[in-house]
Amino acid sequence: MIKTDLPIYLASKSPRRRKLLKQLNLKFKSFSVETEENVLPDEKPDKAVLRIAEEKMFAARKKIKSGIIITADTLVFLDGKVLGKPVNQTDAFRMLRNLSNKTHQVYSAYCLYNTKTGKTITEFVKTDVTFRKLTDQEISDYIKTGSPMDKAGAYGIQDDFGAVFVDHINGCYYNVVGLPLSKFYHALLRII
Amino acid sequence: MIKTDLPIYLASKSPRRRKLLKQLNLKFKSFSVETEENVLPDEKPDKAVLRIAEEKMFAARKKIKSGIIITADTLVFLDGKVLGKPVNQTDAFRMLRNLSNKTHQVYSAYCLYNTKTGKTITEFVKTDVTFRKLTDQEISDYIKTGSPMDKAGAYGIQDDFGAVFVDHINGCYYNVVGLPLSKFYHALLRII
Repeated sequence: MIKTDLPIYLASKSPRRRKLLKQLNLKFKSFSVETEENVLPDEKPDKAVLRIAEEKMFAARKKIKSGIIITADTLVFLDGKVLGKPVNQTDAFRMLRNLSNKTHQVYSAYCLYNTKTGKTITEFVKTDVTFRKLTDQEISDYIKTGSPMDKAGAYGIQDDFGAVFVDHINGCYYNVVGLPLSKFYHALLRII
Repeated sequence: MIKTDLPIYLASKSPRRRKLLKQLNLKFKSFSVETEENVLPDEKPDKAVLRIAEEKMFAARKKIKSGIIITADTLVFLDGKVLGKPVNQTDAFRMLRNLSNKTHQVYSAYCLYNTKTGKTITEFVKTDVTFRKLTDQEISDYIKTGSPMDKAGAYGIQDDFGAVFVDHINGCYYNVVGLPLSKFYHALLRII
């Protein structure tokens, strides 16, 4: 679908994001960058997710001399507060209980950089996600699968459980998985 | 996640629906039923999708003497008119061009029947799906993959191309794939 002579690099450790990129039939190499991913005090969600994606790009550009570089970040907010990855199972339980029967916001940002033209595109997408009411048993069963532990907000919408927890969404589905494919695809066309 | 002594049967040929049911960790057998799936003149989308799911159940009940039976149907509506499966590639092209840059509606209904209690649950979910503007080239490339030909509305939201065509949705994602998992899961708990 997308043709370019430049090699494409994804600077992300996320297996979900790698899978999404493959869905675009893209050939790319991936590597990871180490950056702080904390939201600053009083920082707005959109500003925070864009800044973190840009900081990842700043680190990635030191490693790649020629190509299209992609970085991305996803943040989950509930009642204006960021939900990180759970530190332990109790934390995961608390998070999922808080998400139950409420609407929260998922922000994903990506940053694209073309080393040849020097062009950068940084954009974000917000999706509202509404959980149905969860029972404590359902939450415990989900945590036992281990899946919540490496995920912001302690859930994956593409998980078996995640699928039945989410009642509805308003916005891009893939944005919740980790990359807003439709918007991202167009950005990629523009940067090439 | 769901425990029952009764065998579970899915009366549907759709590989997508089978995959969704597996996502619930359900053990089930599947078979197909032959019914008319036409929307009647002046029939409202919600009425039509519920009726078709019920007619499938009527046919399925003749084949199964003991168990939980599941039937389902999905209809795609644009500007109040139903979009069936494309009859040929030209038809698929016309459909996708019509869907471009517009919001359409996907209705999925399921019917559940418990042979032991005689209980039936029939429900539907509506999801709004918004396509971004598609180029003729993108539409042609998608049709070449063959995927649109067996799908109502000539697209699959879970396809590689479908993913980048859909700008956003309002409602349940899995409803667009073919079964609203979150609502369906709760209905299944009630029928067992």
